[in-house]
Amino acid sequence: MGCAGPGQDGALIDMTSELEQQMAFTDAETAYLGSQQLGRLATIQPDGSPQVKPVGFRVNPGLGTIDVTGFNLTSSQKFRNVRRNGQAALVVDDIASTDPWRVRFLEVRGTAEALEDGVDGGPLIRIRPSRILSFGVEEPPGEPHQTRLHARDLAS
Amino acid sequence: MGCAGPGQDGALIDMTSELEQQMAFTDAETAYLGSQQLGRLATIQPDGSPQVKPVGFRVNPGLGTIDVTGFNLTSSQKFRNVRRNGQAALVVDDIASTDPWRVRFLEVRGTAEALEDGVDGGPLIRIRPSRILSFGVEEPPGEPHQTRLHARDLAS
Repeated sequence: MGCAGPGQDGALIDMTSELEQQMAFTDAETAYLGSQQLGRLATIQPDGSPQVKPVGFRVNPGLGTIDVTGFNLTSSQKFRNVRRNGQAALVVDDIASTDPWRVRFLEVRGTAEALEDGVDGGPLIRIRPSRILSFGVEEPPGEPHQTRLHARDLAS
Repeated sequence: MGCAGPGQDGALIDMTSELEQQMAFTDAETAYLGSQQLGRLATIQPDGSPQVKPVGFRVNPGLGTIDVTGFNLTSSQKFRNVRRNGQAALVVDDIASTDPWRVRFLEVRGTAEALEDGVDGGPLIRIRPSRILSFGVEEPPGEPHQTRLHARDLAS
């Protein structure tokens, strides 16, 4: 009558939560971020409304940040938005399965800097995570109803 | 010595611009939106910061809107954000080529409604476009430097 598996996975995740609080990203999150080529960056327009664009990105393991790159970045509206407003959210996602329909994602919200000279001397938008939300990233593929939203706040 | 193609495409696009102002989406935009399974919806949190999530969506040709759907939509933060704030931006994109690197996208910004009972009786977030931006959607695949950003405002 035992029901092994999901509960044990859940226990493992809980056991690592204290460590996760100190590391910006878990190993599963870092691997997932590395597996995707595009993220979508949301920033705030001067009038307070949102805009969202596909961007390139990479994890900066030393700083625990997400560094966003792009063609002609410094002349883009999103770069000006970040410079003025200092806020951004980035989501990375994919369709893990179409039957059953199963979308995974990792969203990073936080404060953001618009840097003219970042890593390798190129411009970038650097996001310092204040909240990380994920769905289907920590768990191995399983039944959709066993997947749950992970959300945590990080000390600034 | 002739250089046919891109210039003629540009002329064709300009010729249809008046019609595009009255239709919410061009034929190329409608086709592109129909070719992608996920969009990413940016909304505004209560504190004014952005959030962004992958969502399902469909063009509503009768209304000229984008109707966003999702699992447990009415209990989601994005639904509450739209109900309170009335603003949203959705981007649809794909990687058309990796060499040369070529990302296409279509972004729709506008006013948004959080509807408990939308099409087919299900809840949805309905975006009425006020500005549409696209890159690589109107043009046939070509040289990256010949691709340009299309942006237009729509009468509200």
